[in-house]
Amino acid sequence: MDTIVVTGAHGFIGRHTALEAMTRGARVIGIGHGDWSDDEARRWGIADWRRCDVTLETLTQHAESANAIIHCAGSGSAGLALSKPAQDFARSVGTTVEVLEFIRTRSPQTALVYPSSGAVYGPSPSIPTGEDTALNPISPYGVHKKVAEDMVRSYARSFGIRAALVRVFSVYGAGLRKQLWWDACQKAMVDDFRFMGTGTETRDWVAVEDVAALMLIAGHRAATDAPSVNCATGLETSVRDVVAALLAELGTDREPCFSGERRPGDPERYAGDPSRAVTWGWRPKRTWRTGVFEYARWFLASAT
Amino acid sequence: MDTIVVTGAHGFIGRHTALEAMTRGARVIGIGHGDWSDDEARRWGIADWRRCDVTLETLTQHAESANAIIHCAGSGSAGLALSKPAQDFARSVGTTVEVLEFIRTRSPQTALVYPSSGAVYGPSPSIPTGEDTALNPISPYGVHKKVAEDMVRSYARSFGIRAALVRVFSVYGAGLRKQLWWDACQKAMVDDFRFMGTGTETRDWVAVEDVAALMLIAGHRAATDAPSVNCATGLETSVRDVVAALLAELGTDREPCFSGERRPGDPERYAGDPSRAVTWGWRPKRTWRTGVFEYARWFLASAT
Repeated sequence: MDTIVVTGAHGFIGRHTALEAMTRGARVIGIGHGDWSDDEARRWGIADWRRCDVTLETLTQHAESANAIIHCAGSGSAGLALSKPAQDFARSVGTTVEVLEFIRTRSPQTALVYPSSGAVYGPSPSIPTGEDTALNPISPYGVHKKVAEDMVRSYARSFGIRAALVRVFSVYGAGLRKQLWWDACQKAMVDDFRFMGTGTETRDWVAVEDVAALMLIAGHRAATDAPSVNCATGLETSVRDVVAALLAELGTDREPCFSGERRPGDPERYAGDPSRAVTWGWRPKRTWRTGVFEYARWFLASAT
Repeated sequence: MDTIVVTGAHGFIGRHTALEAMTRGARVIGIGHGDWSDDEARRWGIADWRRCDVTLETLTQHAESANAIIHCAGSGSAGLALSKPAQDFARSVGTTVEVLEFIRTRSPQTALVYPSSGAVYGPSPSIPTGEDTALNPISPYGVHKKVAEDMVRSYARSFGIRAALVRVFSVYGAGLRKQLWWDACQKAMVDDFRFMGTGTETRDWVAVEDVAALMLIAGHRAATDAPSVNCATGLETSVRDVVAALLAELGTDREPCFSGERRPGDPERYAGDPSRAVTWGWRPKRTWRTGVFEYARWFLASAT
């Protein structure tokens, strides 16, 4: 039986990754912060829940002899990276160096999967963006993700660590209490239908269950050349289309109204080419339209 | 009177930078580690010597209202980066983020000069290498320097910090008790004339006094686009030529003998194009031949 360590297992991608790993037969150890009882952790597939920082010491205590570490710890917030860059850097890059150092010095057989972001490509790449595109991030969030990738590649090359980098595009799913879908539902509850931006910005929406599946696949593709793979559908959907569909599912008859001003740092188009992931045996099983239906159901049932 | 903070002021480039700043009329605050009395620090131009880590807190105590911080703290050792990568990362990148965070949150008028390395270009660039060459470092040392550069550029772009990056090539000077010149002199003392490598590897030797001068010039070129500049002569000199000249100055009649094997990670050719520094008003004033003469004098007088 494989042992999989998921850091940041309380987070949105982390908990779904833990559940997917358990479903595939692994014993899952979760490390991170978050207010969970052992029972709650077990419902997400986590056999051992260790509430602590991700450091060389805690990994030595809890992660020894793991087949893979899926390092989901980190802020996952472009806003935090802009308002508190040093804190985001510590969470994204600092913890990644701790994981790398643990594998280098204590557990060299352990593979590393690092959830990166499509933000590493930066503004205006060709769409859909392939993995071999030059990395030119502009936002602090994208820079920190790229720096973490650089460190993973460096340890892989210089110290023989096996790793894989999964560049996640716009993730969605029931339970996600932040970002566009959440904000749109929250606003609709108070009859606010005004949104920033043009509404014509495109995003590549990928379901969290599909993200989790690719994390597990990537664990088996980890190698000393640290391959990167897009976690994306290749499809562009406008912000307006998604918000309008959400509002309709919530039962309003209103259309969203956009300010029309481009938001600085917000990409106009954003979509990843999933061809490499497909060659790895992955395929996104869900569409954003089904996702909108389920998200609105979840929101109305539990989030209000 | 300008106030210049030099971190890592006890180090080789740091102390020469402090002395150069004082000579140009600045009040110099030195921060870092090293066993110095106040008198010794003053001989290197340092009015206030603060023996402490480089952190947001210590900078807030000692660096407020500085015109510039020249951040010389860091390991400066490719060997350490390979044997203790996390420690080198903390020293190179971690302290740089502390300095950036200090300027962003406490002292936005302060300019930053970051001493980077020609190692950021990686193997096999065109020679002499210009600043616009793609950065493709392979060694952990080069990767960490590039990551520190990336963080400086990110803070400059996103938070309006004024910075300049000085990519130093192969530095030499009396007092440097490590690297090729030191090793050659040490070996000669015990009649060992064997060296690793082919001897045909080229290096671009730049005197520490010239490096210090460019650090001060760069402080006046710091801008929110974080310009980078090579600190180099553009001239290639073989390792064999330098070692042979050193041995001759030491009074031996022996020629160095090289193993003939390429050392992995050791670049075959290494030289930087100094054109941009020249447009900034800098010019290397010393040649390696004079340097060898002075180094051998210093070594025979004080280092044995």
